[in-house]
Amino acid sequence: MEKGISTSGQIHSTLPSLTGGVGGGSLRAKIDNLNKPKGSLGRLEELAYQIGMIQQTLSPELRCPTHLLFGADHGIEHEGVSVSPRCITWQQMQNFTRGGGGVNMFCRQHGFDLRLIDVGVDYDLSDYPQILNRKVAPHGTANFLYGPAMTEEQCEQALDVGREQVDAAFDRGCNIICIGEMGIANTSPSSVWMSLLLDLPLEQCVGAGAGLNGEGVHHKLDVLRRSIQNSPFRRPSEADHSQRLPDVNSLVEQLANGPSVLSYFGGFEMVAAVGAMLCAAERRMVVLVDGFIMTACALMASRMEPSFLDFAIFCHCGDESGHKLMLERMGVKPLLNLGLRLGEGTGALCAYPIIESAVRMINEMGNFDDNKITKYF
Amino acid sequence: MEKGISTSGQIHSTLPSLTGGVGGGSLRAKIDNLNKPKGSLGRLEELAYQIGMIQQTLSPELRCPTHLLFGADHGIEHEGVSVSPRCITWQQMQNFTRGGGGVNMFCRQHGFDLRLIDVGVDYDLSDYPQILNRKVAPHGTANFLYGPAMTEEQCEQALDVGREQVDAAFDRGCNIICIGEMGIANTSPSSVWMSLLLDLPLEQCVGAGAGLNGEGVHHKLDVLRRSIQNSPFRRPSEADHSQRLPDVNSLVEQLANGPSVLSYFGGFEMVAAVGAMLCAAERRMVVLVDGFIMTACALMASRMEPSFLDFAIFCHCGDESGHKLMLERMGVKPLLNLGLRLGEGTGALCAYPIIESAVRMINEMGNFDDNKITKYF
Repeated sequence: MEKGISTSGQIHSTLPSLTGGVGGGSLRAKIDNLNKPKGSLGRLEELAYQIGMIQQTLSPELRCPTHLLFGADHGIEHEGVSVSPRCITWQQMQNFTRGGGGVNMFCRQHGFDLRLIDVGVDYDLSDYPQILNRKVAPHGTANFLYGPAMTEEQCEQALDVGREQVDAAFDRGCNIICIGEMGIANTSPSSVWMSLLLDLPLEQCVGAGAGLNGEGVHHKLDVLRRSIQNSPFRRPSEADHSQRLPDVNSLVEQLANGPSVLSYFGGFEMVAAVGAMLCAAERRMVVLVDGFIMTACALMASRMEPSFLDFAIFCHCGDESGHKLMLERMGVKPLLNLGLRLGEGTGALCAYPIIESAVRMINEMGNFDDNKITKYF
Repeated sequence: MEKGISTSGQIHSTLPSLTGGVGGGSLRAKIDNLNKPKGSLGRLEELAYQIGMIQQTLSPELRCPTHLLFGADHGIEHEGVSVSPRCITWQQMQNFTRGGGGVNMFCRQHGFDLRLIDVGVDYDLSDYPQILNRKVAPHGTANFLYGPAMTEEQCEQALDVGREQVDAAFDRGCNIICIGEMGIANTSPSSVWMSLLLDLPLEQCVGAGAGLNGEGVHHKLDVLRRSIQNSPFRRPSEADHSQRLPDVNSLVEQLANGPSVLSYFGGFEMVAAVGAMLCAAERRMVVLVDGFIMTACALMASRMEPSFLDFAIFCHCGDESGHKLMLERMGVKPLLNLGLRLGEGTGALCAYPIIESAVRMINEMGNFDDNKITKYF
């Protein structure tokens, strides 16, 4: 944990350990004995090993893949930090129920059960029964330029939404979960999480989102810098050039009550994603991590439970400034880099067949014993 | 064409032009109007555009995907340039008939019709009816250290094997073709093609293949350097330090008869692949290009018909030394980099679902007109 940063680390029990009935040695031996030069299936071999360890078996399988798409709006959007208008959040949530979104076509292609969950979209979606109503607040988060985005109670509630959805998927037999988001302006809270959790200058964490120009990025950076300066999480190096807002002193009180980076800057869909990720790891499920926003959530999850990373597959590195750096700092290597920046979990879904290939590899390929092939390198 | 290099460029008619009934403008407009920020599906948008142009339609489709796997042996293998023994070629060809190879599991996963073609495997495979006998020579190519790997007649015959297989796939309704190879030592001829066609020093084109150590790579480099020096294709800069073999003068005669880089250094499976690639482009099929060896074949095809590249999708960049450089020099960008180096076409097959996603995207996603979504960026 970085100094000066508190997260709600206490709410989760320790994740299951990856050392159990099946040792890594026997998995490695099985993979190495498949009839191919050792290591010649590259990342597929790494994936097969990871999934075998998660499932504690030499014959892993992927069951009932489920995509959880959490939607919510963001108070910080009112500061003009996004090129897209706020109404896109609810319009796209509706669009997803009609099957016309990017996420829909990926789910159809790869057989994912798509679940749409409203954790705080700024619109009444009750006419859409396919969208589960789990609103933590009817209009989304508060504007973190002036105070915490949510209360600790709301934060717990959003975490629980994520956990509930993973539990339900688990009960349906799912053992691989993908998580996506819809929430205009949510690269902003993600950038702040990244900056604070990795102790990196905000400049290295802020990018164009869905398409800001240079001026727009500059404004976004300024808004986020002021947001941190106004918060209990401002860093000494930034205090000097801070333009404090009048009510900043009240934050001292909040600090005493232990607000977290999670709740102070988070979006409801992001906190729900963190809850879902941690619960999935507890359930020994494989977790597919999407782009910049979901990587920020995975970073948060890994700070709350470091062994979370054992269960996560980082699927895509997009062009959003900071994403590559965040992955590097986390010590993880994404599977794809196809320049996707749509969100919704599409980058993770796009990588699913590769994960499927890895599982097929370990289960279906012949080996040197079976096939009377001269063992080669 | 590089100076001093002749290829059998005259045998193929001009490929179809990609400007026809459907203009690029209307394809671009359709893609840009899908309900997502413009460009936010990155490479998928590029793929959808390319395939739409190939098929001359706003609604492309992928039909009867077919994987052609050409197998053959190489005379140069006798020089100890490969870590794997020659017998692996026929053993793996047999293994593919049992469904136990890497290529089999990818074909099952993605619904590819797998065709196995023996163009010169050094083994009698007539007991395996699933392997089509199209042997150009019963023991594979001659050793190009001492002379041409094949005659011009054999070269034409191998090209025809590739063309025949693509024609047959086309007649079955196929419009997307993937090509793979099985041939121990075939990174060697690929490196020579790359070096000569791109006029690059051999050092930048020679790597570890399936797993040579440093000493092995050094030996391979030495063998290939001597092979070029002994050939009509030696470059002036290399003539001084060449250790000519006794029979080198006879090559002058061969030069007069117009041997090509294609035939002099090629493998039968590689020449068949070149023929298949060119025929597929003539048929307006999408061509999936695999790793180092198939990229060298695509390079050769593009030298014979530059517009071939319009029809090719480069699917995977492996770790083989020189592969990245070859792709860069060709001005093409691979979809994946998963560290695969198995061959068989597995890198190309692995990328297929991404190509499928691109086609689904343009056909299935809603657009801003249909869905009453505020157009955003």
